[in-house]
Amino acid sequence: MIIVADNIRITDQIIADAISQMNPVPIQKIVMECEKAGAQVIDVNSGPLSRAPEKHMVFLIDAIQEVSKLPLIVDTANPKAMETGIRACKNKAIVNGFSLEPAKLDKILPLAKKYQTDIIGYLLYPNGHVPPDGDKRLEIAIELFEQFKKHGIDEKRLIIDPIIAPLSWQSGKFQAKEILYVIKHLPDIFGFPVRTIAGLSNLTTGRGHKARKLIMEKVYISMLASAGLSMIMMNVFHNDSIKTVRACNLLIDEKIFAWEEMD
Amino acid sequence: MIIVADNIRITDQIIADAISQMNPVPIQKIVMECEKAGAQVIDVNSGPLSRAPEKHMVFLIDAIQEVSKLPLIVDTANPKAMETGIRACKNKAIVNGFSLEPAKLDKILPLAKKYQTDIIGYLLYPNGHVPPDGDKRLEIAIELFEQFKKHGIDEKRLIIDPIIAPLSWQSGKFQAKEILYVIKHLPDIFGFPVRTIAGLSNLTTGRGHKARKLIMEKVYISMLASAGLSMIMMNVFHNDSIKTVRACNLLIDEKIFAWEEMD
Repeated sequence: MIIVADNIRITDQIIADAISQMNPVPIQKIVMECEKAGAQVIDVNSGPLSRAPEKHMVFLIDAIQEVSKLPLIVDTANPKAMETGIRACKNKAIVNGFSLEPAKLDKILPLAKKYQTDIIGYLLYPNGHVPPDGDKRLEIAIELFEQFKKHGIDEKRLIIDPIIAPLSWQSGKFQAKEILYVIKHLPDIFGFPVRTIAGLSNLTTGRGHKARKLIMEKVYISMLASAGLSMIMMNVFHNDSIKTVRACNLLIDEKIFAWEEMD
Repeated sequence: MIIVADNIRITDQIIADAISQMNPVPIQKIVMECEKAGAQVIDVNSGPLSRAPEKHMVFLIDAIQEVSKLPLIVDTANPKAMETGIRACKNKAIVNGFSLEPAKLDKILPLAKKYQTDIIGYLLYPNGHVPPDGDKRLEIAIELFEQFKKHGIDEKRLIIDPIIAPLSWQSGKFQAKEILYVIKHLPDIFGFPVRTIAGLSNLTTGRGHKARKLIMEKVYISMLASAGLSMIMMNVFHNDSIKTVRACNLLIDEKIFAWEEMD
C-alpha cells in the first residue's frame, strides 16, 4: 500500500489559519514532518476555499512544493479550486474526487480528461449518502465506471474509494467488513486490477479512547492490506500504524522475506 | 478467535526440567500467568514423553488442573501419553492431533472417537512435510475429512490446522498468503463452518529482530482474523498481540461496536 498523508486538511486549525493568513511556514513544517514520517503522497484537503479559491489553492500548492517533491492529491469539491490546483502541481496531480453527484460528474470528472490525471471515485449515492452494504457499493462502482468511460478517460486512471465509515456508527462494524469485501471484489467486477484508496482516519472518528483507536487502526490496516488495498490515506504521525503498513507491504510483495527490510 | 496459550511446551527448559523432576510449581506459575494474560485454552505440549509417558502426562495435567479450570489441548505424538492425558482432563480434552501419517490415523484418530473429543487435523503430507501451496492443503483437507468420517466421528469435532510456515523460509511469504486462502476456503470445501486453529509462533521462528517479529505477528493476527480463523495458538505473554486479537474479535463479532469492550 502506498502511504498517503491526510495531515494537510482544512479542518486542522493550524492549516486553516495558515491559508487564511497566506503564511506558508506552518504548512511547510507539517509537510516536511509528513515526508519524514513516511508519507509517499500528500492529500491536500483545502476544503471548498469559497473565498478566493484560485489564489488560496495556488498559495497552498506552491507552499507545499517549495519543501517537498512528493506527488499531491488535490482534494476539494470546488471545481475552480480543483482546476487551479491541478495546474499548479509540478508532478501530475491526482484529483480527489468525483462521485455520482451531478455537480461532480459535470464539473470535476471532465478535469481528469482535460489534464490526463488520475482521479478518485467515491462509492457514494448521488446525494452523498454512504451505501448500506458492500453489494450496493459494487453497484455504484459499476455506475461510476460507466460514467468514467463515457468521458473517454483511460480506465487505468480510476482509483476507487469505497468510503470507510466510522466504527461508532450503529452499522460501523458491518460497514468495516463490507469495505473489505468491496476491495477484494472490485478487480473481478471491473475485469482489471483497479486501484483502490481508503481514508483510515474515518474509521475511528468520534469519541473513544486514543490507545484503543490506535490498536483498531492497526488491525484494520492489516485487513485492508490483506484485501488488496492499493493506497492508504492516513495520519502519518501515527508511527506504529506506519510500521504496520510497512510490515503489511513486506508480507504482500513478491520478494523473498527478510526482517531487515522492515525499517 | 479463541486464544490458546502455546506457553506450556517441552521445548521450554523450565517446563522440561519441571516434568523430569516432577515439580509442579514452575508449571503452575506459568499456567497462572497464561490465564492472567488472556489464555482461554491451554495447549499442553508435552512432547513424546518417551520415558514413563503415562506417569509424566498425569503429573503434567494434574499440575495444571490444580491451578486452572481452562480447557486443555493434549499435544503429543505418543498415543499412550495422549490417551492418559485425555483421561486425566477434567474438562473434555482436545486432541492435538492427527494427520495423514499412518501412525496418527491408526493410533491417535481413534482416540477422538473413543473419548468423543474434538481433534485437530494437520494439513501435512503423510510423511510430515509441509505442502507447497494452498490448493495442495485443501486436497489434504479433503483426504483428512474422509479419514475422519471413516471413523464415524461427528464432523463438528474436527478442527483444521493449516500449518503456518516460518516467514524465514524461502517460500515463507507465499505460504503466509496461502494459509489465509485455505482458512477462507475450508468452509466452502467442507460444506459446513469447520473450525480452524493456527500456531502463530511458527511464523516468526528463527533469527530476526524481536520488535520486528512482534509487529509482523500483529499484522498476521489481523489477517488471520479477517480470513475467519477460529482459534489462535500463540505466546500469550505477547501483550500487544493479545490486544490485537481482542480488537479483531471486537471488529468481527456481531454486536454493536463500543470502544469500551476492547479491554
